[in-house]
Amino acid sequence: MEFYAAPIARLIDAFESLPGIGHKTAQRLAFYVLTLPEEKAFAFAGAITDAKQKIHYCNKCYNLTDEQLCAICSSSRRDPSQLCVVEAPKDILAMERTNEYRGHYHVLHGVISPQDHIGPDEIKIRELITRLADDTISEVILATNPDIEGEATAIYISRLIKPFGVKTTRLAHGIPVGGDIEYADEVTLAKSLEGRQEL
Amino acid sequence: MEFYAAPIARLIDAFESLPGIGHKTAQRLAFYVLTLPEEKAFAFAGAITDAKQKIHYCNKCYNLTDEQLCAICSSSRRDPSQLCVVEAPKDILAMERTNEYRGHYHVLHGVISPQDHIGPDEIKIRELITRLADDTISEVILATNPDIEGEATAIYISRLIKPFGVKTTRLAHGIPVGGDIEYADEVTLAKSLEGRQEL
Repeated sequence: MEFYAAPIARLIDAFESLPGIGHKTAQRLAFYVLTLPEEKAFAFAGAITDAKQKIHYCNKCYNLTDEQLCAICSSSRRDPSQLCVVEAPKDILAMERTNEYRGHYHVLHGVISPQDHIGPDEIKIRELITRLADDTISEVILATNPDIEGEATAIYISRLIKPFGVKTTRLAHGIPVGGDIEYADEVTLAKSLEGRQEL
Repeated sequence: MEFYAAPIARLIDAFESLPGIGHKTAQRLAFYVLTLPEEKAFAFAGAITDAKQKIHYCNKCYNLTDEQLCAICSSSRRDPSQLCVVEAPKDILAMERTNEYRGHYHVLHGVISPQDHIGPDEIKIRELITRLADDTISEVILATNPDIEGEATAIYISRLIKPFGVKTTRLAHGIPVGGDIEYADEVTLAKSLEGRQEL
């Protein structure tokens, strides 16, 4: 890469360090940034430092926020007795887009994954237990991903919170809406059969 | 997007404004940046402002550089009598990777494209003519892309520099190395037949 001036090479490297961005794409993005008007490029850099400086975890649910409490925890229109446990902040957005859930959240920031050396202490499970002990919560919805780590984490948490006598649920598995039975994998199809509902 | 704190929304928007980055990818990149250690995130922002502030056009060939002249124009090991005309700085890198070309470059920063309202005055053609008048150049290689605008620009430039009596060449068209004749499009195949060489 000796043909690039050092600042360009550094910019390409910066883009390349992002997940899913290869060298060619990094190059394209770097050259694009160089064609931007100065104020736009600086606004981009500013957005990065700004987000990094101002964004931290919500004191209650560990969602990302620039306040003490996130918009959901501080809203009076949400039901604090329902708690949806998710792996990551972006899962909250997916849930919110359904427009069906009006409760609070708890973000684990990961899942239990022995092969990545992530045990229960590395994610926000202790904090979840504290919330269960302090607040009046009637239902915990375990919305971790339907993969091995997500399932294991959900089972681990459900056992841990059993003593609290709180209703614990898991998101239903089944054929995606608009999906095709013919192309559904057998595990999903078996789950959707198991969870069939009366009409 | 009301569920995101404003600094996160701004960061997602910044990534989404990049070419080829959709909303989902922008979201993923923004969350990734938030998980970075502070110094890494700041280094990323710094790489953007730094590149934008320090990088400008080479005074001679309009390549991107942080000096007065780019590394190629200022090198004594390059042949200044050969001039390869390219559309964009990244084309220089592609040419350099061949390790075959030892001459200088001239970057047009675009191609003539009437439908985008880009005429000959919007790209660095005048500057090319000035170089031809000032320097002793024996060959101009027109390495614009083999598409309609690139071809038209090459023909336009070749006519314009005819009075200088300089040898003007165009990169050869043909089947890519490792390609398959069966799958070559007919225009490429016709060009490769036209340009066939004796063994």
